[in-house]
Amino acid sequence: MDTKSKQMIEEGSELRLQFEKRDGLLPVVVQESSSGDILMIASVNGEALNQTIKSGKATFWSTSRQKIWVKGETSENALLIEEILVDCDQDALIYKVTLDGKGACHTTNKKGSPRKSCFYRKLNTDSLKLEFLEK
Amino acid sequence: MDTKSKQMIEEGSELRLQFEKRDGLLPVVVQESSSGDILMIASVNGEALNQTIKSGKATFWSTSRQKIWVKGETSENALLIEEILVDCDQDALIYKVTLDGKGACHTTNKKGSPRKSCFYRKLNTDSLKLEFLEK
Repeated sequence: MDTKSKQMIEEGSELRLQFEKRDGLLPVVVQESSSGDILMIASVNGEALNQTIKSGKATFWSTSRQKIWVKGETSENALLIEEILVDCDQDALIYKVTLDGKGACHTTNKKGSPRKSCFYRKLNTDSLKLEFLEK
Repeated sequence: MDTKSKQMIEEGSELRLQFEKRDGLLPVVVQESSSGDILMIASVNGEALNQTIKSGKATFWSTSRQKIWVKGETSENALLIEEILVDCDQDALIYKVTLDGKGACHTTNKKGSPRKSCFYRKLNTDSLKLEFLEK
Protein backbone atom coordinates (compact mmCIF):
# COMPACT_ATOMS: atom_id res chain seq x y z
CA MET A 1 0.00 0.00 0.00
CA ASP A 2 1.34 3.44 -0.87
CA THR A 3 1.85 6.16 1.74
CA LYS A 4 -1.11 8.21 0.54
CA SER A 5 -3.57 5.31 0.80
CA LYS A 6 -2.23 4.40 4.26
CA GLN A 7 -2.64 8.01 5.37
CA MET A 8 -6.24 8.13 4.10
CA ILE A 9 -7.13 4.88 5.84
CA GLU A 10 -5.50 5.82 9.15
CA GLU A 11 -6.14 9.55 9.38
CA GLY A 12 -9.11 10.10 7.10
CA SER A 13 -12.80 10.52 7.75
CA GLU A 14 -13.82 8.38 4.77
CA LEU A 15 -15.01 4.87 5.55
CA ARG A 16 -12.71 2.54 3.61
CA LEU A 17 -13.15 -0.78 5.37
CA GLN A 18 -10.55 -3.29 4.21
CA PHE A 19 -12.86 -6.24 3.56
CA GLU A 20 -10.83 -7.51 0.60
CA LYS A 21 -7.69 -7.70 2.79
CA ARG A 22 -9.53 -10.18 5.05
CA ASP A 23 -11.38 -12.28 2.49
CA GLY A 24 -14.57 -10.27 2.92
CA LEU A 25 -14.96 -10.64 6.68
CA LEU A 26 -13.83 -8.32 9.47
CA PRO A 27 -13.78 -9.13 13.19
CA VAL A 28 -16.19 -7.19 15.36
CA VAL A 29 -15.96 -7.01 19.13
CA VAL A 30 -19.24 -6.46 20.94
CA GLN A 31 -18.79 -4.35 24.05
CA GLU A 32 -21.51 -3.40 26.53
CA SER A 33 -21.54 0.42 26.64
CA SER A 34 -22.54 0.74 30.28
CA SER A 35 -20.01 -1.68 31.80
CA GLY A 36 -17.23 -1.93 29.21
CA ASP A 37 -17.65 -5.73 29.35
CA ILE A 38 -16.77 -7.57 26.15
CA LEU A 39 -19.75 -9.77 25.33
CA MET A 40 -18.64 -11.63 22.21
CA ILE A 41 -16.55 -11.55 19.05
CA ALA A 42 -18.03 -12.25 15.65
CA SER A 43 -17.51 -11.42 11.96
CA VAL A 44 -19.19 -9.03 9.56
CA ASN A 45 -19.26 -8.69 5.82
CA GLY A 46 -20.41 -5.51 4.08
CA GLU A 47 -24.04 -6.60 4.02
CA ALA A 48 -24.12 -7.45 7.75
CA LEU A 49 -22.63 -4.06 8.58
CA ASN A 50 -25.10 -2.21 6.35
CA GLN A 51 -27.99 -4.06 7.95
CA THR A 52 -26.62 -3.22 11.42
CA ILE A 53 -26.45 0.48 10.52
CA LYS A 54 -29.99 0.49 9.11
CA SER A 55 -31.70 -1.58 11.79
CA GLY A 56 -29.72 -0.50 14.87
CA LYS A 57 -29.47 -4.17 15.82
CA ALA A 58 -26.16 -6.02 15.85
CA THR A 59 -26.02 -8.19 12.75
CA PHE A 60 -23.18 -10.52 11.79
CA TRP A 61 -22.10 -13.03 9.20
CA SER A 62 -22.38 -16.49 10.68
CA THR A 63 -19.28 -18.40 9.60
CA SER A 64 -20.81 -21.71 10.70
CA ARG A 65 -24.16 -21.25 8.95
CA GLN A 66 -22.76 -19.09 6.11
CA LYS A 67 -25.58 -16.59 6.30
CA ILE A 68 -26.57 -13.23 7.74
CA TRP A 69 -27.21 -13.54 11.45
CA VAL A 70 -29.41 -10.98 13.19
CA LYS A 71 -28.54 -11.43 16.85
CA GLY A 72 -31.68 -12.09 18.87
CA GLU A 73 -33.78 -13.12 15.88
CA THR A 74 -34.28 -16.59 17.34
CA SER A 75 -32.91 -16.19 20.88
CA GLU A 76 -34.72 -12.96 21.82
CA ASN A 77 -31.39 -11.68 23.13
CA ALA A 78 -30.75 -8.77 20.79
CA LEU A 79 -27.93 -6.25 20.94
CA LEU A 80 -28.90 -2.63 20.35
CA ILE A 81 -26.23 -0.49 18.74
CA GLU A 82 -25.04 2.61 20.58
CA GLU A 83 -21.85 3.29 18.60
CA ILE A 84 -19.71 1.67 15.95
CA LEU A 85 -15.95 2.23 16.22
CA VAL A 86 -13.39 1.57 13.49
CA ASP A 87 -9.69 0.84 14.02
CA CYS A 88 -6.59 2.49 12.52
CA ASP A 89 -6.24 -0.01 9.66
CA GLN A 90 -10.00 -0.08 9.03
CA ASP A 91 -10.00 -3.85 9.32
CA ALA A 92 -11.66 -4.31 12.73
CA LEU A 93 -14.78 -2.92 14.42
CA ILE A 94 -16.34 -2.45 17.82
CA TYR A 95 -20.09 -2.50 18.30
CA LYS A 96 -20.87 -0.67 21.53
CA VAL A 97 -24.25 -2.00 22.58
CA THR A 98 -27.02 -2.29 25.10
CA LEU A 99 -28.12 -5.82 25.80
CA ASP A 100 -31.82 -6.30 25.09
CA GLY A 101 -32.31 -9.61 26.82
CA LYS A 102 -30.64 -11.81 29.39
CA GLY A 103 -27.28 -12.46 27.82
CA ALA A 104 -25.26 -12.40 24.61
CA CYS A 105 -24.00 -15.98 24.84
CA HIS A 106 -25.85 -19.02 23.48
CA THR A 107 -24.64 -21.06 26.49
CA THR A 108 -26.42 -21.07 29.83
CA ASN A 109 -25.20 -20.84 33.40
CA LYS A 110 -26.05 -23.22 36.24
CA LYS A 111 -29.37 -21.46 36.76
CA GLY A 112 -30.33 -22.01 33.12
CA SER A 113 -30.01 -18.35 32.11
CA PRO A 114 -28.03 -17.26 29.05
CA ARG A 115 -24.57 -16.13 30.10
CA LYS A 116 -24.11 -12.39 29.65
CA SER A 117 -20.71 -12.75 27.96
CA CYS A 118 -19.15 -15.53 25.90
CA PHE A 119 -15.96 -14.91 27.88
CA TYR A 120 -16.88 -16.77 31.07
CA ARG A 121 -13.60 -18.64 31.51
CA LYS A 122 -10.05 -17.53 32.14
CA LEU A 123 -6.90 -19.41 31.37
CA ASN A 124 -4.79 -20.42 34.35
CA THR A 125 -1.39 -19.78 32.82
CA ASP A 126 0.34 -22.23 35.19
CA SER A 127 -1.93 -25.27 34.86
CA LEU A 128 -3.18 -24.30 31.36
CA LYS A 129 -6.69 -25.21 32.54
CA LEU A 130 -9.75 -23.03 32.13
CA GLU A 131 -11.38 -21.60 35.24
CA PHE A 132 -14.98 -20.41 35.32
CA LEU A 133 -15.35 -16.75 36.31
CA GLU A 134 -18.95 -17.13 37.47
CA LYS A 135 -19.53 -17.72 41.15
CA MET B 1 -19.25 -31.51 15.70
CA ASP B 2 -20.92 -34.06 17.98
CA THR B 3 -22.76 -33.07 21.15
CA LYS B 4 -20.05 -34.45 23.44
CA SER B 5 -17.26 -32.45 21.77
CA LYS B 6 -19.41 -29.30 21.83
CA GLN B 7 -20.09 -29.84 25.54
CA MET B 8 -16.39 -30.28 26.30
CA ILE B 9 -15.44 -27.15 24.39
CA GLU B 10 -18.19 -25.00 25.92
CA GLU B 11 -18.42 -26.31 29.47
CA GLY B 12 -15.05 -27.96 30.03
CA SER B 13 -11.93 -26.82 31.81
CA GLU B 14 -9.62 -28.27 29.16
CA LEU B 15 -8.04 -25.81 26.76
CA ARG B 16 -9.11 -26.93 23.28
CA LEU B 17 -8.57 -23.85 21.17
CA GLN B 18 -10.09 -24.29 17.72
CA PHE B 19 -7.15 -23.08 15.64
CA GLU B 20 -7.85 -25.51 12.79
CA LYS B 21 -11.40 -24.14 12.43
CA ARG B 22 -9.92 -20.69 11.68
CA ASP B 23 -6.97 -21.65 9.46
CA GLY B 24 -4.56 -21.51 12.38
CA LEU B 25 -5.31 -17.97 13.58
CA LEU B 26 -7.71 -16.80 16.29
CA PRO B 27 -8.76 -13.20 16.93
CA VAL B 28 -7.60 -11.67 20.20
CA VAL B 29 -9.04 -8.50 21.68
CA VAL B 30 -6.68 -6.50 23.85
CA GLN B 31 -8.51 -4.80 26.71
CA GLU B 32 -6.96 -2.50 29.31
CA SER B 33 -7.73 -4.08 32.71
CA SER B 34 -8.02 -0.84 34.63
CA SER B 35 -10.37 1.04 32.28
CA GLY B 36 -12.07 -1.66 30.22
CA ASP B 37 -10.96 0.21 27.09
CA ILE B 38 -10.39 -1.94 24.03
CA LEU B 39 -6.93 -1.09 22.74
CA MET B 40 -6.59 -3.23 19.61
CA ILE B 41 -7.56 -6.45 17.86
CA ALA B 42 -4.97 -8.82 16.46
CA SER B 43 -4.46 -12.51 15.66
CA VAL B 44 -2.62 -15.32 17.41
CA ASN B 45 -1.44 -18.72 16.33
CA GLY B 46 -0.47 -21.42 18.84
CA GLU B 47 3.14 -20.25 19.00
CA ALA B 48 2.21 -16.61 19.67
CA LEU B 49 -0.13 -17.68 22.48
CA ASN B 50 2.51 -19.96 24.04
CA GLN B 51 5.04 -17.16 23.92
CA THR B 52 2.52 -14.77 25.51
CA ILE B 53 1.90 -17.23 28.36
CA LYS B 54 5.62 -17.76 28.97
CA SER B 55 6.77 -14.15 28.69
CA GLY B 56 3.75 -12.34 30.14
CA LYS B 57 3.95 -9.92 27.20
CA ALA B 58 1.24 -9.75 24.55
CA THR B 59 2.54 -11.54 21.47
CA PHE B 60 0.68 -11.93 18.17
CA TRP B 61 1.00 -13.30 14.68
CA SER B 62 1.49 -10.41 12.30
CA THR B 63 -0.66 -11.15 9.25
CA SER B 64 1.08 -8.40 7.24
CA ARG B 65 4.64 -9.44 8.07
CA GLN B 66 3.80 -13.16 8.45
CA LYS B 67 5.87 -13.55 11.59
CA ILE B 68 5.64 -13.58 15.39
CA TRP B 69 5.15 -10.06 16.68
CA VAL B 70 6.11 -9.23 20.26
CA LYS B 71 4.22 -6.01 20.93
CA GLY B 72 6.64 -3.32 22.09
CA GLU B 73 9.74 -5.05 20.75
CA THR B 74 10.45 -2.16 18.40
CA SER B 75 7.98 0.50 19.63
CA GLU B 76 8.71 0.24 23.37
CA ASN B 77 4.94 0.16 23.92
CA ALA B 78 4.52 -3.31 25.42
CA LEU B 79 1.32 -4.84 26.78
CA LEU B 80 1.70 -6.77 30.03
CA ILE B 81 -0.71 -9.66 30.48
CA GLU B 82 -3.02 -9.65 33.49
CA GLU B 83 -5.49 -12.32 32.35
CA ILE B 84 -6.31 -14.35 29.28
CA LEU B 85 -10.00 -15.12 28.68
CA VAL B 86 -11.38 -17.73 26.29
CA ASP B 87 -14.83 -17.69 24.68
CA CYS B 88 -17.55 -20.34 24.59
CA ASP B 89 -16.48 -21.82 21.24
CA GLN B 90 -12.79 -21.58 22.13
CA ASP B 91 -12.10 -19.67 18.93
CA ALA B 92 -11.54 -16.16 20.32
CA LEU B 93 -9.47 -14.67 23.14
CA ILE B 94 -9.19 -11.58 25.30
CA TYR B 95 -5.85 -10.39 26.62
CA LYS B 96 -6.51 -8.21 29.64
CA VAL B 97 -3.44 -6.02 29.93
CA THR B 98 -1.60 -3.14 31.49
CA LEU B 99 -0.10 -0.75 29.00
CA ASP B 100 3.66 -0.39 29.48
CA GLY B 101 4.23 2.68 27.38
CA LYS B 102 2.30 5.53 25.89
CA GLY B 103 -0.18 3.78 23.65
CA ALA B 104 -1.05 0.55 21.90
CA CYS B 105 -1.57 2.06 18.46
CA HIS B 106 1.17 2.59 15.88
CA THR B 107 -0.48 5.88 14.83
CA THR B 108 0.13 9.17 16.61
CA ASN B 109 -2.19 11.96 17.74
CA LYS B 110 -1.81 15.64 16.96
CA LYS B 111 0.75 16.00 19.75
CA GLY B 112 2.90 13.25 18.23
CA SER B 113 2.18 10.69 20.97
CA PRO B 114 1.09 7.14 20.18
CA ARG B 115 -2.67 6.86 20.44
CA LYS B 116 -3.70 4.70 23.41
CA SER B 117 -6.26 2.71 21.40
CA CYS B 118 -6.50 1.82 17.72
CA PHE B 119 -10.21 2.66 17.98
CA TYR B 120 -9.98 6.45 17.82
CA ARG B 121 -12.79 6.98 15.31
CA LYS B 122 -16.51 6.32 15.41
CA LEU B 123 -18.82 5.86 12.49
CA ASN B 124 -21.50 8.48 12.03
CA THR B 125 -24.32 6.18 10.96
CA ASP B 126 -26.16 8.99 9.14
CA SER B 127 -23.35 10.49 7.06
CA LEU B 128 -21.27 7.26 7.03
CA LYS B 129 -18.21 9.39 7.77
CA LEU B 130 -15.67 8.69 10.50
CA GLU B 131 -15.43 11.10 13.41
CA PHE B 132 -12.35 11.37 15.62
CA LEU B 133 -13.05 10.71 19.29
CA GLU B 134 -9.98 12.60 20.51
CA LYS B 135 -10.46 16.21 21.55
